[in-house]
Amino acid sequence: MVVHSATLAIDEAIRARKARGEQILHLGFGEAGLPVLPTVANVLAQNTGHNAYGTVVGAPAARRAAAGYFDRRGLATDPDQLVYAPGSKALLYAVIASLPGDVVLPRPSWVSYAAQAALAAKHVIDVPIAAEAGGVPDPAALDARLTQARASGRQPGVLVLTLPDNPTGTLAPADLVREVCAVAVKHDLVILSDEIYRDLAYDPSLVLSPALVAPERTVVTTGLSKSMALGGWRIGVARLPDGERTAGLRDAIVGVASEVWSSLAGPMQDVAAYVFAEPPDVTEHVAESRQLHRTVATAVYDQFVAAGATCRPPTGAFYLYPDLEPHRDWFAAHGAKTGADAATFLLDRYGVGVLAGEAFGDEPDALRFRVATSLLYGETSDQRWEALRSADPLRLPWIAASLGQLREVLTKLGTKTT
Amino acid sequence: MVVHSATLAIDEAIRARKARGEQILHLGFGEAGLPVLPTVANVLAQNTGHNAYGTVVGAPAARRAAAGYFDRRGLATDPDQLVYAPGSKALLYAVIASLPGDVVLPRPSWVSYAAQAALAAKHVIDVPIAAEAGGVPDPAALDARLTQARASGRQPGVLVLTLPDNPTGTLAPADLVREVCAVAVKHDLVILSDEIYRDLAYDPSLVLSPALVAPERTVVTTGLSKSMALGGWRIGVARLPDGERTAGLRDAIVGVASEVWSSLAGPMQDVAAYVFAEPPDVTEHVAESRQLHRTVATAVYDQFVAAGATCRPPTGAFYLYPDLEPHRDWFAAHGAKTGADAATFLLDRYGVGVLAGEAFGDEPDALRFRVATSLLYGETSDQRWEALRSADPLRLPWIAASLGQLREVLTKLGTKTT
Repeated sequence: MVVHSATLAIDEAIRARKARGEQILHLGFGEAGLPVLPTVANVLAQNTGHNAYGTVVGAPAARRAAAGYFDRRGLATDPDQLVYAPGSKALLYAVIASLPGDVVLPRPSWVSYAAQAALAAKHVIDVPIAAEAGGVPDPAALDARLTQARASGRQPGVLVLTLPDNPTGTLAPADLVREVCAVAVKHDLVILSDEIYRDLAYDPSLVLSPALVAPERTVVTTGLSKSMALGGWRIGVARLPDGERTAGLRDAIVGVASEVWSSLAGPMQDVAAYVFAEPPDVTEHVAESRQLHRTVATAVYDQFVAAGATCRPPTGAFYLYPDLEPHRDWFAAHGAKTGADAATFLLDRYGVGVLAGEAFGDEPDALRFRVATSLLYGETSDQRWEALRSADPLRLPWIAASLGQLREVLTKLGTKTT
Repeated sequence: MVVHSATLAIDEAIRARKARGEQILHLGFGEAGLPVLPTVANVLAQNTGHNAYGTVVGAPAARRAAAGYFDRRGLATDPDQLVYAPGSKALLYAVIASLPGDVVLPRPSWVSYAAQAALAAKHVIDVPIAAEAGGVPDPAALDARLTQARASGRQPGVLVLTLPDNPTGTLAPADLVREVCAVAVKHDLVILSDEIYRDLAYDPSLVLSPALVAPERTVVTTGLSKSMALGGWRIGVARLPDGERTAGLRDAIVGVASEVWSSLAGPMQDVAAYVFAEPPDVTEHVAESRQLHRTVATAVYDQFVAAGATCRPPTGAFYLYPDLEPHRDWFAAHGAKTGADAATFLLDRYGVGVLAGEAFGDEPDALRFRVATSLLYGETSDQRWEALRSADPLRLPWIAASLGQLREVLTKLGTKTT
């Protein structure tokens, strides 16, 4: 049985505790934490008449807009290469289920890749990430692992990358992407590049899509859940390669889509058509969001590092992946020996909700945690708008209070146990 | 590989031909063919602020409303028994994929059940429908087939029923439902009752849900695609039984949901909360829709019968399933030996688009076709509103013209070939 997604589960658990009046610092969920842009809300409101089933892949206007979005990122795209779905998660599943062979994942990586592989009865091969960034496996380790896997009779088929990455909040540099792609080509893997955080890279010009490096074998997925904070609207799109290597993949994905979810809701396709055309209000909103994510993630990063954690500096999205190994004795003295123990302890004792790395495929014993910083912007829409427009969001009272609560908890790390 | 859903495929093919200016009578697609009720459009427009991921099963308000919907149909329901998804198709897939054992289907039955079973690597056991109605297998044949299947080592696990039925447009009478449920109990099958057309039964008081007969083992799915013509909005909900027989099923479904589509879009949950509460505007709209479907389906039924077809009289939804076996020689003289040949011939020669029964699991040679009558109401929203409100929709010029075109084609059946 596939278990309830760990990220969705912690969100539900923490929301239930908050509803009971507990003072919880919710760092456990990767929701962008921002309101809907009014022009975008208006597009949805204006297109309620679109109630026909429509085509499985999505309407031409929505696909033309997404083609333009990719074109502007150097990826010339025919609308026929695109397939919409209710969320890029559904497309990731369809791709993983449709491609032959084992699924190769960076460790750690987003919770759902491995779960989707399990759902599709696929074997997972995981490879540690490099020291410099997450979202891609270390190239040398990947090459060695693939060689070994083939020697033992396995058939690695698809490599999943995340650029920028969840859970580490880092963007793999271009050189690293090139090296990883070279290994994928050497071993004839299809690359599945999850770029849902792409526009939230702190410097978008640094993003190198694997689809530029290995165009004949790279599927790109993206959506509006992160950059536009529309997670609850479920809008995703996949860009399929055009070559022989993935012949039949589009038909296979359309087959899965047509038998599981049919299509993205019609009015949501109108939203996609509007947003992917990137009018100025959208690009400004994304830029403001990116800046806020960067400011708050960096402030939280500073706190973790000051408390003795080892952590990659965030370079995209709204995540950190601190390693609290230096405080292993302190956690052990509180009865917490694994990452999950420690996460439970932090939540129960200090009201700090983070997810242990184990949920992302990391070692259960590791004291590494995914810290999501995007739910610090406020509880209300007004607070979130103010955070988004503030020149100094860290000084807004509710954000300052959360950061203060976190700092106080972190200063306890390593102190004598009582 | 799972192929593109046959119903969605013919719709796309026919729309493409119409776009090229061909005069096609589109009887191939099960879309309700009606506009969005303005009060419902307004609910969507008013809830654009709901962009949070929310819980996988759906918000409490939406589940409370659906619980009330089932309560009013004699099925006392706790909101915790309900799971929303982007379309009931997704829930049917999750249930089929989650329950152990082979999938038992009426033959013919809706195209996607067998395809979903294939996607979930499940064996299908199909059993012919009874003479009186489709949507359920003939009880005696079912009993014999299950006994035989077990004897040959198969493990029948879940029986899918459709009430009222697609493709036959008939509602299985209560006695038949009771008999089929008794066989399901005898063989310890879980029943998956697809009731998406329930409110379009021409006499809703005649609907007996298997969940009333075998409450401990019946999952019911429904949605707003048919009764409210909101197919393109993708709103579905499943009602799970409460007993031991299906312990763990809810967790399994939530597991699949959380890793494939996450949840129904937030604003669509608000729509569900509104519609399932069944305010008077909704119940009136459903009643008017039901009447229109009944009037037009019955008129088309009369034409097929007049042309010599054998056909069950429609008692729900907007389908017919005529058997043109009496005209086998005529089709053969035109080179059409199978149902698919004949459907292609009718489309190419006469511009009449129907789906051969083979798409629904019926014998390839049979000259049985699913005829969907709901796209005759008009091409524009204005025409559809007029059809809905007309005391005599058959006399509206565009509906009369379509019926005339169909009559002309049907009179050619059995005439000398040229």
